[in-house]
Amino acid sequence: MALNIRIILIQTWHPGNIGAVARAMKNMGLSDLVLVNPVDFPSDEAYSRAGQATDVLDNARVVSSLAEAISDCVLVVGTSARDRSIRLPAYTAEQCAEEAVTLQQQAPVAIVFGRERMGLHNDDIQQCHAQLNIDANPDYPVLNLSQAVQLVCYEVFKASQRQNQLPQVEEDYPLNEDLNRFYDHLAQTLDEIGFTNTKAPGQALDHLKALYRRARPTAKELRLLRGVLSKAQEAADKS
Amino acid sequence: MALNIRIILIQTWHPGNIGAVARAMKNMGLSDLVLVNPVDFPSDEAYSRAGQATDVLDNARVVSSLAEAISDCVLVVGTSARDRSIRLPAYTAEQCAEEAVTLQQQAPVAIVFGRERMGLHNDDIQQCHAQLNIDANPDYPVLNLSQAVQLVCYEVFKASQRQNQLPQVEEDYPLNEDLNRFYDHLAQTLDEIGFTNTKAPGQALDHLKALYRRARPTAKELRLLRGVLSKAQEAADKS
Repeated sequence: MALNIRIILIQTWHPGNIGAVARAMKNMGLSDLVLVNPVDFPSDEAYSRAGQATDVLDNARVVSSLAEAISDCVLVVGTSARDRSIRLPAYTAEQCAEEAVTLQQQAPVAIVFGRERMGLHNDDIQQCHAQLNIDANPDYPVLNLSQAVQLVCYEVFKASQRQNQLPQVEEDYPLNEDLNRFYDHLAQTLDEIGFTNTKAPGQALDHLKALYRRARPTAKELRLLRGVLSKAQEAADKS
Repeated sequence: MALNIRIILIQTWHPGNIGAVARAMKNMGLSDLVLVNPVDFPSDEAYSRAGQATDVLDNARVVSSLAEAISDCVLVVGTSARDRSIRLPAYTAEQCAEEAVTLQQQAPVAIVFGRERMGLHNDDIQQCHAQLNIDANPDYPVLNLSQAVQLVCYEVFKASQRQNQLPQVEEDYPLNEDLNRFYDHLAQTLDEIGFTNTKAPGQALDHLKALYRRARPTAKELRLLRGVLSKAQEAADKS
């Protein structure tokens, strides 16, 4: 199920960034890209940076104003590192993603990214319903454009995953009774090789059991461990 | 307070990616970059993509093996989109970040990224304690290298923000070199008790090593395990 979330880039200078944005979007399952007055598009440079996301570029729409890009949207969030005189609700990327994934069920949600050097102008921000500030190092918070898009799309992907997540069991795991048999075998082997003659033997066994519980061995690994124990017992038998 | 978290890039092909990684790191407050056999570094292309993160490139260390890059690390996480036969704990970027931010209080934590086209090889993965899979679109999960680094560094930044007051590391964990000594001891003991006479012995050892990497024994538990091995060796000696 494709998410109805639109990425809008305003006056992008470097075509390579447009390509990198397309790839970042597709990596996170998004495909609706709108370019407001791009400086150089379409271009080879954009396609060469897009990896396998050339379809996102093929379907990108070029428009001449932000107003045109957002007219059908239910929520418009502007990404900005700067404080503004116009006070808008300020989202983290995570909060923006939660809100976008919820509202896109109704109509498109737009997330807007500004120019490489200048970001969003005040008249862009005035068309947004909310502002998004990406958590970053206060000493150098200015991310590359495609990296900023990547982070936001990633949060969107995670938010959509959280909504319908079912864990899948990939490995065959032993039952608890199999684990208990392994612990018995371990205790017996420690005894036979003389390990339990040292001080506080029960405590050592408890520590080892905790370690193996933590490792969560698969059924296959448990057979391997029991094979090792059997060999140690054989060695002890002969001695 | 700088986090003691190291980003390691293996055999990076495009110098532009190295520059973009440096910027992505600095945007999220990280600075320790180690390059294993980069194809082209230092280079103008790397510096032109680094923005204001040229200091990260200036201080980057170039080494000739992954082993060298991680020998002083307490935790080594490999980033990989592919499933592996050797089962390691699989972290999301978020879980990896939580663990890294906690453990870096004790010693450096390494997060390893593979080649642009090939990712990590199996012999790289075998040196990792855990595996990191970045949540992504299953139809096109292959992120650009610098984008992958950006996401992980962003999660690290968020995790460090969450832990305003960092929890104390309760346990003392062994360094990678201590673990390697344990693996050598394990291999030798398997040999002495006759376990390596069975079919595919190297594979069995690899599985056991993966299991112990996953269990992440504390320094105390490692001493316990080595005590058990020594006893098994004694038993084998006598027989």
